[in-house]
Formats: sequence, C-alpha cells, structure tokens
Amino acid sequence: MFVYADHAATTKLSAAAMKAYAETAAKYYGNPSSLHSVGQEAQEMLTACREEIAGILGAEAREIYFTSGGSEADNQAIRSAAYAGARKGKKKIISTAIEHHAVLHTLKRLEREGYEIVLLPVGESGVVEAKAVEEALDENTALVTVMLANNEIGTIQPVAEIGAICKKQGVLFHTDAVQAVGHIPVNVKKIGCDYLALSAHKFGGPKGVGALYVRRGAPIFPLIEGGAQERGKRAGTEDLPAVAAMTAALKASVADMDATSAALQGLQHKLIDGLSKIPHCALNGDREMRLPGNVSFCFEGIEGESLLLLLDEKGICASSGSACTSGSLDPSHVLLAIGRVHDVAHGSLRLSLGAENTVAEVDYMLEAIPEVVNYLRNMSPVWRDLMAGKRQFIL
Amino acid sequence: MFVYADHAATTKLSAAAMKAYAETAAKYYGNPSSLHSVGQEAQEMLTACREEIAGILGAEAREIYFTSGGSEADNQAIRSAAYAGARKGKKKIISTAIEHHAVLHTLKRLEREGYEIVLLPVGESGVVEAKAVEEALDENTALVTVMLANNEIGTIQPVAEIGAICKKQGVLFHTDAVQAVGHIPVNVKKIGCDYLALSAHKFGGPKGVGALYVRRGAPIFPLIEGGAQERGKRAGTEDLPAVAAMTAALKASVADMDATSAALQGLQHKLIDGLSKIPHCALNGDREMRLPGNVSFCFEGIEGESLLLLLDEKGICASSGSACTSGSLDPSHVLLAIGRVHDVAHGSLRLSLGAENTVAEVDYMLEAIPEVVNYLRNMSPVWRDLMAGKRQFIL
Repeated sequence: MFVYADHAATTKLSAAAMKAYAETAAKYYGNPSSLHSVGQEAQEMLTACREEIAGILGAEAREIYFTSGGSEADNQAIRSAAYAGARKGKKKIISTAIEHHAVLHTLKRLEREGYEIVLLPVGESGVVEAKAVEEALDENTALVTVMLANNEIGTIQPVAEIGAICKKQGVLFHTDAVQAVGHIPVNVKKIGCDYLALSAHKFGGPKGVGALYVRRGAPIFPLIEGGAQERGKRAGTEDLPAVAAMTAALKASVADMDATSAALQGLQHKLIDGLSKIPHCALNGDREMRLPGNVSFCFEGIEGESLLLLLDEKGICASSGSACTSGSLDPSHVLLAIGRVHDVAHGSLRLSLGAENTVAEVDYMLEAIPEVVNYLRNMSPVWRDLMAGKRQFIL
Repeated sequence: MFVYADHAATTKLSAAAMKAYAETAAKYYGNPSSLHSVGQEAQEMLTACREEIAGILGAEAREIYFTSGGSEADNQAIRSAAYAGARKGKKKIISTAIEHHAVLHTLKRLEREGYEIVLLPVGESGVVEAKAVEEALDENTALVTVMLANNEIGTIQPVAEIGAICKKQGVLFHTDAVQAVGHIPVNVKKIGCDYLALSAHKFGGPKGVGALYVRRGAPIFPLIEGGAQERGKRAGTEDLPAVAAMTAALKASVADMDATSAALQGLQHKLIDGLSKIPHCALNGDREMRLPGNVSFCFEGIEGESLLLLLDEKGICASSGSACTSGSLDPSHVLLAIGRVHDVAHGSLRLSLGAENTVAEVDYMLEAIPEVVNYLRNMSPVWRDLMAGKRQFIL
C-alpha cells in the first residue's frame, strides 16, 4: 500500500488547479502590464483572482499582494513592519519559539541589524497564551508575529485574541497562516491582523506562489524591486497561471472545508488513539487545538530519521518535523519548545493527512508504525538501557 | 489577422514546457526537502534540472540558484555584491543608464542606503563602451552590473569585454541576461561574469521562475530567508514543476537557436527596412548589435500609446517600450539615454518577434503600421506644426 501522509510538507497539485493552470497559460498568456488586449485580458484575469482570494479571506482586493510563496510573504511582512517601526524608534518584535524558519530566521537577521526580538514560550500544549503577548507588549514594540497554526505539531494559536490585544495597543500584527489557509476558516477581519501570509502548495495549489494580505493603511515595502507590479510593492511579471491555479485550489478547499475537516478529524482521532497504545510515546501538542489533519508523536528510544526510512520502505510518506529542516541534525525547535528533551525530540513522527487519505490507509499505518517502532527499539542501545533500568523513561 | 509581436514582454508557455510542468506536477509532487522517496525523487529531478541548465550556461550545477524570476535574481545578485563590497569599504557600483528597472530601482535604493551609483551613458547606438566601464572603475568599486541585451531596443552589450576588465581589476560583475538567454548564445565562462540573471517566461518557459548564476566563490546572501533550500541562499519550497518546465523550454530554445535566430533576423530586417520607409522615423539602437527578434522605432509626431491601441484593434500586439513601465506617463529612460528627446521618445514602438511569427504576419504589420502612423499624424497638432514649418523635424 502507498500512503502519502506528508501534506503539511506539500500537497499534490489538485486536478482543478492543474486545469486552471493549463487553461490560463494557454488563454491568458499576455503580460498583465501590456497595454494590448492580450495583456489587458491577463490583467482582468489577475484582478478576478485577486478579488476571489480577497473575498475568501474577508479582505479587499487591493489588500492582497501575490508573492512567490509563504516564505517571501513572511519575509516581506516582517521587514515592512520592522522598517516602519524603526522610523518611529520602535525596534522590538514579539514572536513565539515555535514559528516557521521563514519567520525565525528573518527575526534573527533583524536582531543582528539592531532589533530586539522576544520569543515567547508556548508550554507543553504548543499553544502560546494571548496574555503572554499582552505582557510582553510595550511602547517600543513594532510588531507581533504569531503563526496561525504550527507546521510541525499542528497547534492552532489564539490569533484573534492576540489580534485584539495588538489592535488595542496600536501594534502591528502579522500571522503566518501558511498551514491554516484552505484547512480551517481564516478571516483577516475576525483575526484582526495587519498582515497574513499564505502559500498555495499547502492546499492543492501550485508551488512557487502565495499571497500576502496587508491591511489597508499598514506599512508595506518591496522586498523585490523593479517594475510597478502589485501596486509597486512586488516587482516581476505576475505568474498568472499559478495565481489562477491557487485561486481554483483555494475555492475548492473552502467549498469542501466542512466535509474534509470532519473526515480528517475522524482519521486523525483514529490515528492518535491507535498510536497512543504504543508504550512510551506522547502526542505532541494539544489534542483539540490542532489542525484536522495533523498527528505528531514522539516515541522514546528511537531515531525519527530511521523511522521515516523504514516507513518509506513500507510505502508510507511521513516526516519527522518540517520538511524545510529535514537533513539537519538538530532536533526540532518546536519539540524543544514544548518541553521534549533532545533524545525524545529526535524520535518524532509527523503524519499530515489530506482529503484523499482513507480509513484503509489509516488502518495500514496503525499496523505498520507500531511494528517499525518495535523493530527499531529492539535494535536500540538506548531502549535496552531504558528497559534494563539504566536510564529513566521520560515518556 | 492576429499577430503577437510582444515576445520581449512575455512569451506563451511552449507545448514542451507545459508538458513538463504537468508531468512533473503529477509525478514529482513531493517536497524536495522530504526524506521519503516521493521527496527524494523530487530532489533528484531538481538536481537533474539544475545540471541541465548549468550545462547550457557553461556553469556548474552548484552555481545555479533557482528564483521566482529575473527581478528577484537581479535584486539578489546586486544586493549580495553590494553587501560584500561594503564589508571591505567598497561602496561604488557601476552600471548603465539603460538597465531594466529591476536593476535601476535596486541601485536607487542602494544609493539611499549610502552607496555611490555611477550610470554610464550609452550613446545613440544604445551600446555601452567597455572602455567607459574601465575608466569608471576604481578601488572603491564593489560591482559592475551591465545587462546582456536591452529589453526595449534589443541592443547587445559587450559583456565579455566588460567581464575581462572586471576580472582584471578584481571587481564583481553581474549581467542581467533576462532578454538574452534562450535567444542568443550565453556562456558564463565566455562572459566572465560573477552573476547572471535569467527568466523563464522570456523563452517559452513559465512565469514566476528564473535562475541566478553565482560563480563559485562569489558572495551570495539570501533575499528571502527561512528553510535551507538552494544551499541556504533562497528559502521556500522549490517550484519543481516550473523549474522542469523552464528546463524543457531552455533546452528547446537552445536546440533551435541557430534556425530560429536566422529566421527571426530575416523577419527583423524585412520589418526594419519596411518601417524605415515611413518618413520622419528612426530605428532605435544599433542595427546589427541587437537581438534577432527586436525592432524598435520612434515615429515623430505621434503618441506611442495611441499607436498601440490602434494596432491592437488591427490584431497586432506590440509595446511602446517595456511592459513593466507601461501605464507610466514618463518617456522611456532607455530612449532618453540614446538621445531621443521627450516628444520623440513618446512616439515609440517595439515589435519583438518569436519563432511562431511568419512572413505573412510581417507583411500584414508593414501594411498596418504605416497606415496607423499616417492616420495618427493626420490628427496630430504637433504633426501639423511640423508640416507647417512651425516646428523643426528632429528625425
């Protein structure tokens, strides 16, 4: 059996998105900046996509900037708010310890540029407390950036509460919604954010395209300079086929969201219950406040990488944490942030389900995973020490 | 008749590229950073594309960084060299007055950040002299950035000579080859550049993807931070379907280059000869040192925008200058740089031909354009003044 259970890393381009891509590439191939009719038809198509996406997010069309993906959108939002803050002498940025690297590495760079970066802890639940944001806020704060849902453990953050706090204090608020958009309801007005980043390939759209919502009036500076595309804030010929495909994928995801979400939660709970029977393991992150397709566990006494490779041999595509950091020997910063010690954090497994996953696939995974965990434990010196009482079990 | 003569603005996705996109999206949909086989197959496909593109450019695979397009590649090359220069106290950048806005606007921003920017003139031919670069170079120079071929008037710059001068002086050299790659032979070794930017949609590839060549050892900093993709220099999940489509398009363009180039030059010369018969007009840029598909004229006494709209009504898609600045009321900086006065620069027309254009289409354009120019001149008060001797003809 083949099971793709790594949808948080990337999804396959949906049939609807592929169709939109091909049709747009064939029919609306003009440069939207060209004055002739082929260009103007492309421009109209671009506007229609912008309106559609804005409508889904509860935004205005002019508040949507198309980017090459979530990372670019995160970089641009954070840098824009940081520069605007610095002009007013505000150089403090508040975030969390479990953000995606597109956020964390941008913040690290800003720290070297003289900004003060505060990363709030999240506790074992993997959820930041809105109150902690409120307490960290001061008059020097330029920006609060908190992700909507975590990419590794799927925990959903109280962004609407944080948005309300930021609005009250007059501080800009960005949310990295890359893992959330297309999977759970996302409305910029309800969140009360100034910026929101999304990525198409996380919900059946193409890779290489995303969007940044920027509330009208919030500062926005170009990261890529050149032509006057995207109201002068993002140079480069617009990738209209990809934008159209992203729009088609988002429309389809949102239309099916209730049904998909319910189905995924069914599979998710079955997986969580089944895997919980494995001794000395733990679910990572809050069981309820999480994305419907996310299942993340730590298994004591094994290496996540070996687990992945053996599961792959059994046809199961999974991940240890985020795809972006695989290959790195450091344990996940997210798992460390929720209190997993190094050894335990190394034994992690993320299964992220999508609409095409089935009960039969979950049954297969529930058969394969305990088998592989057992097999690896039997070979593990750490496990032998644990069983012999030479080490203490943590989980 | 319908004639698309705006290939310098963008090209239609070629059939080969569309096929590669669809096949890659279906088969290699994994995240290349994922450890499982679906991810690793994507990673291998990415490597194969990188090797293919590197081979075509005379580079090594590890010298190719995939980007979201030409603008991003230009921005990253220039900023990387600028930052590296500043660390050594070198803050002077030499460029030309006819660069693309992705270069010029980045330089303008760097000027505000404290860099010294020198823009060399080009003279009527639209070609910069290598000697002028040599004379402008000094020990404070961090970077020379000169485009390979101009996007408006198609003139080809002596980049190999400039590359040799830069190498001799130990100064970094970037060339924006967006208009050249896929159309004329481009080899990074022969040019002797440290950076080279290209964009797929200019040669039948997809929009939203391009590449930056960075000579091994040349400084390169990320513009977009986050995951460790592209050797840590460009974060964001790789857009493999687009990269594969770009590779297919580039392979096809290069394979057909000699034949296409000869055919385009035939059409080009026919167009230039035919349009030259219109009184009071002038070809923009050197007749020989230009891209095979580029025809650029100024017609005295008319407005380029009206010309475009009337040609569009006759089914001819053309441009006045670059697509990126259309809609702007300022005359083209390129036409001003080659000595066209404002009024004359406003009456510009760029026809950029592609492989699918035919002799019949050129015949049709040679019928339609003089007709439309005449029609507009008959309505133009400026033209009346010129004819009445109240104003002096410039062309």
